[in-house]
Amino acid sequence: MKLATVRVDGRTTAVRVEGDVLIDLGVPDVGAVLAGAEVADGKEYALAGADFAPLVPQPSKVVCVGLNYRNHIQEMGRDLPEYPTLFSKFADTLIGAYDDIVRPAETSEFDWEAELAVVIGQQVRRADEETAIAAIAGFTVLNDVTCRDWQFRTREWLQGKNWDSTTPVGPWLVTPDEVGGPRPALDIQCSVNDQIMQKDNTGDLLFDPVDLVRYVSTMIRLNPGDLIATGTPGGVGHARKPQVFLRGGEIVVTQIEGIGRLENHVTAG
Amino acid sequence: MKLATVRVDGRTTAVRVEGDVLIDLGVPDVGAVLAGAEVADGKEYALAGADFAPLVPQPSKVVCVGLNYRNHIQEMGRDLPEYPTLFSKFADTLIGAYDDIVRPAETSEFDWEAELAVVIGQQVRRADEETAIAAIAGFTVLNDVTCRDWQFRTREWLQGKNWDSTTPVGPWLVTPDEVGGPRPALDIQCSVNDQIMQKDNTGDLLFDPVDLVRYVSTMIRLNPGDLIATGTPGGVGHARKPQVFLRGGEIVVTQIEGIGRLENHVTAG
Repeated sequence: MKLATVRVDGRTTAVRVEGDVLIDLGVPDVGAVLAGAEVADGKEYALAGADFAPLVPQPSKVVCVGLNYRNHIQEMGRDLPEYPTLFSKFADTLIGAYDDIVRPAETSEFDWEAELAVVIGQQVRRADEETAIAAIAGFTVLNDVTCRDWQFRTREWLQGKNWDSTTPVGPWLVTPDEVGGPRPALDIQCSVNDQIMQKDNTGDLLFDPVDLVRYVSTMIRLNPGDLIATGTPGGVGHARKPQVFLRGGEIVVTQIEGIGRLENHVTAG
Repeated sequence: MKLATVRVDGRTTAVRVEGDVLIDLGVPDVGAVLAGAEVADGKEYALAGADFAPLVPQPSKVVCVGLNYRNHIQEMGRDLPEYPTLFSKFADTLIGAYDDIVRPAETSEFDWEAELAVVIGQQVRRADEETAIAAIAGFTVLNDVTCRDWQFRTREWLQGKNWDSTTPVGPWLVTPDEVGGPRPALDIQCSVNDQIMQKDNTGDLLFDPVDLVRYVSTMIRLNPGDLIATGTPGGVGHARKPQVFLRGGEIVVTQIEGIGRLENHVTAG
């Protein structure tokens, strides 16, 4: 099953995706569906031309993992970690799957990070393996677009990762049964103007989705609609020689096999 | 003016504090008041014995500043920074002014951090000085209780700072006019079992409340009810020789002159 949040008539609504058709579920967004709101099939819309909102517009948490693909850890010059490195994004960073990414005037190092994101479907705390698996409603695609100059201003990354309306997420949630279960091994890729910049497989994650739900839920409850961005593979602009950054005018395509595809124009703010 | 959120009959309600009396404002919490919900004076309650909820139960952001008092920066062995160090807390960390702090079984280094918190009253982005001042609804008291062992597991502090229901905030918001304006110079103190552990003055902040609203709003919108915890002074348990940590059974009192006082029992989880 695929679920999405789309913009219709100046509001958002949750839909189920069936082939080329979106079926209105009568609640404002996928967050409401996952929180248990009563849904009923309503109007149908065409998938073509649909205006996707952030998959979950106001998650209570967007937990991000900093270093989780072996080759990205190596390109950043670090050792393989014993524990996942966690930071977070505010919900106001999120945009829809095809929305423009506005490059802030305040950065000169605007970079991409393709990521598999876990969508939580049930409240959990101190989840064991079985509970963690049950809490995963599905997966989606996210690009953790980052201002590297701000990320490295201080030792905490938050200020590079939390620019308003710069993080596309979507277009839809895909349930685990459609992608081989709760630890999917899927090709993940990011291209900029058709040049492939990142290419890896989510099976290379050091800490997989189940591990991450267990680890994060040790410290804090996870709620329906919460997102865990599982980290990005090698190939970010910051680690290239010479470095490459987004300036405005590019098209960034972020895709995961069997899940979906984000396509975002970068505009100069 | 003082505003608070209290628990009454199994729900929360916003109140205005007038001397020994709390006046019900008819909306669920201070977040709703700041967001512009229509309020009207209703029932009165006694201040004595009132059950305070987190001042704002579900802020869209709790932005925290890591190193902001000169003497705490020095005790942690760091240079004075050019930029504020920012991290964040999820709303599910917050508890009321007199709630118990449950020490997680997973930590052996549970520490205190008394802080002045700024409460945002208007949405702002890229605020100039005047707009930043206008966006400050008031101030409150917060204790950024921290699991040091988890904080230092990785280079990002988030996982030491985000344990469920461990961050008391309140008891009320005090408007800037009652504390000398938007850059208050007030004695701040934290004691554990009546032993004073931290004692400083909020006038010592390197980055003051107005600076912080300007800086954070450069990157992301701040919404009514959002909190900025401005950092803690010297005297944390981690920096003491020998180190001292909370084990359960202690009473932690966090107070700021002219604002208010948190009193929390620590219980062993």
